[in-house]
Amino acid sequence: MEVKARVIKMAREAKEASRILCNLSTKIKNEALFYMADSLEKKTDEVLKENRKDLKYAEEKELSRPMIERLTLNPERIKDMAEGLRKIALLEDPVGEIVSGWKRPNNLEIRKIRVPFGVVGIIYESRPNVTSDAIGLCLKSGNSVLLRGGSEALNSNIAIARILSDAAQEKNIPRGFVQMVDNPSRDAIEIMLLASEYIDLVIPRGGAELIKMVKEKSTVPVIETGVGNCHLYIDKDADLKMGVRICVNAKTQRPGVCNAIETLLVHKDVAGKFLPMVSQGLREHKVELRGCPDTRKILKGIKRATEEDWYTEYLDLILAVKVVDDIEEAIEHINKYGSGHSEAIVTQNYNSARLFLKSVDAACVYVNASTRFTDGGEFGMGAEIGISTQKLHARGPMGLRELTTTKYIILGDGQIRE
Amino acid sequence: MEVKARVIKMAREAKEASRILCNLSTKIKNEALFYMADSLEKKTDEVLKENRKDLKYAEEKELSRPMIERLTLNPERIKDMAEGLRKIALLEDPVGEIVSGWKRPNNLEIRKIRVPFGVVGIIYESRPNVTSDAIGLCLKSGNSVLLRGGSEALNSNIAIARILSDAAQEKNIPRGFVQMVDNPSRDAIEIMLLASEYIDLVIPRGGAELIKMVKEKSTVPVIETGVGNCHLYIDKDADLKMGVRICVNAKTQRPGVCNAIETLLVHKDVAGKFLPMVSQGLREHKVELRGCPDTRKILKGIKRATEEDWYTEYLDLILAVKVVDDIEEAIEHINKYGSGHSEAIVTQNYNSARLFLKSVDAACVYVNASTRFTDGGEFGMGAEIGISTQKLHARGPMGLRELTTTKYIILGDGQIRE
Repeated sequence: MEVKARVIKMAREAKEASRILCNLSTKIKNEALFYMADSLEKKTDEVLKENRKDLKYAEEKELSRPMIERLTLNPERIKDMAEGLRKIALLEDPVGEIVSGWKRPNNLEIRKIRVPFGVVGIIYESRPNVTSDAIGLCLKSGNSVLLRGGSEALNSNIAIARILSDAAQEKNIPRGFVQMVDNPSRDAIEIMLLASEYIDLVIPRGGAELIKMVKEKSTVPVIETGVGNCHLYIDKDADLKMGVRICVNAKTQRPGVCNAIETLLVHKDVAGKFLPMVSQGLREHKVELRGCPDTRKILKGIKRATEEDWYTEYLDLILAVKVVDDIEEAIEHINKYGSGHSEAIVTQNYNSARLFLKSVDAACVYVNASTRFTDGGEFGMGAEIGISTQKLHARGPMGLRELTTTKYIILGDGQIRE
Repeated sequence: MEVKARVIKMAREAKEASRILCNLSTKIKNEALFYMADSLEKKTDEVLKENRKDLKYAEEKELSRPMIERLTLNPERIKDMAEGLRKIALLEDPVGEIVSGWKRPNNLEIRKIRVPFGVVGIIYESRPNVTSDAIGLCLKSGNSVLLRGGSEALNSNIAIARILSDAAQEKNIPRGFVQMVDNPSRDAIEIMLLASEYIDLVIPRGGAELIKMVKEKSTVPVIETGVGNCHLYIDKDADLKMGVRICVNAKTQRPGVCNAIETLLVHKDVAGKFLPMVSQGLREHKVELRGCPDTRKILKGIKRATEEDWYTEYLDLILAVKVVDDIEEAIEHINKYGSGHSEAIVTQNYNSARLFLKSVDAACVYVNASTRFTDGGEFGMGAEIGISTQKLHARGPMGLRELTTTKYIILGDGQIRE
């Protein structure tokens, strides 16, 4: 009950702040963002002190090296966070944009305008920079934000949120627009997920398990992000050298992220030539290959791919490989096993390119480019809050605009319905 | 288990059909819609025969008069359904629209295009015309549709769906794009709500209880529709005659629908003059008033409004009335008790109008017009699948465009990420 009362109080305060926030001018929001960035940099020592508490605890709990690496802050990383806030200040304010407008025969004027959601809940894991990104993006899009970070970063997250919230308040942003749920229990998350009276949207950022839990429990609308079981298909009419370059890039440039590929599909007519070429390139990056029977006839000695492999997002230097009879089989495989994130074909054939673009059911479908471009920055949107793999509301990289909804305003002169 | 296997089979078949449907030309879809309309009219007797079975059962079960009225079909109503399909054929096809597009510094071309969801699940009550509307709207927007109508209309719904599905198939629409869940149990609904592997979106159309259940159980993304606790606020600077006209229209023109008002808010400076005027107009339509203490000082003898009244969507000739101190109190009341559907102010004051438009958190916010215009037809969108009262994806009347999602297609020449 104690936890529940606290979380609900935070959500209610966030909602109250959002009533003011939604009408603030872009100028006020931008001034606050610049001031918040300065504050964060000035208080680097304060953040680092709290971060050391988290790191000490992480070592005691023997968290994995990559996890501790993600958790670790230093002056450079804090500077990047501040820089991130300044970049958000420079992005266009989506609030108030007239999406469309028309006049009806009875002279009613209808306008569809972009407005903030109200309160956005964000449930995330490890990296403390998500705290400042989320606060900045929500402020610029006119939303209050209720944050629930991973327990391993609790002290760092609290410090960052407090510094940014205090700075914002000095610049006329309503107190309460940032709320940090400081209770490390799962209960706190579940209370958030049922607080649909106050919270308008929940975005989980983290592993598949977290996202599954949020989807199952939440009555607040959810945007799923991030799970990426991505594929690259090498068509029979591919430029094979380009195929090798794209495959190596999409797998190895940063294997731990959602837009890296996990499965390579190769047309049977070119498999004999392409697979040895690509396996050499991948071997230089220490990528482990797991193949279907046909692949293993060409690449001797590699492990066998099981049914489970086709479903797996390795997030690691492992690549499943399958030889397919034709482009239709490739598309079917992707639509069956893929997570709807980023999918690519390499081909010189106009019809294959069109068919792939039309038939693959995913947020981002590429011809002759690496899937690694699925990213708010690479798309030119600036900072992103995540990459949506669902179809409702937002699909693909989510920037400021995706953190807004619309409302209709209708101007009349006394019209009634006959 | 039997039910589950059946519903999952339907959902899977719908998904398979959707893979073809998403790429069909507008021409083919329109030809099918016209042919389906003709078929439905030709088979009027067949539909009426099945409808009589439902009506007989309804009388045995002693369903209410309004419910039986909604259930009853006649040649006229079937003609209207057919006409509805023809109108959908004439609407613009949203599929393939390029929503936006740009080129990146590395020459990647990014385009955001409108595509169908895939499979739309619709859970609805009573009126059999929803069956043909939903089938028509989903076909035109390139989606398969999984329907689950009310058990009281089961025979009518099955007949309509079968006739339309058969006709569509004759015109090259893939078999399986219409699926009618013919199991009257709640279990069937719950299975649909968890079939997120096959169903991309669920739209419940019905009472508050149905919608609550769907929100709680569903792991498939949901669009909430229809609950409308709508308000009219008479400002101190209102044209009071206009206020009376709009109030009477918004309450009585069709009291059983979601965009009718349920509460009237009146500024204290004009309450003494306005309330007697409006109560006369409402009395002519036999509207029962329930008032706050200040209202009851002016309109003697009316019932007292309780806290519960402010939350209630009467859908009936009842109106709650509250006198407020100022526009801020009106806005606060609406944001607290309203369901975010349609809200109106009557005022001649520029600043009041602006404040109301900016601060009321609802799908449709009106100045000097009746809330009864919140409707796909009245907005000029043509047929609608419902009125969304949530903020994710669609807000307000949902037409064909709201039955689509987007995908990014990215065209390259071998770009990799550095």
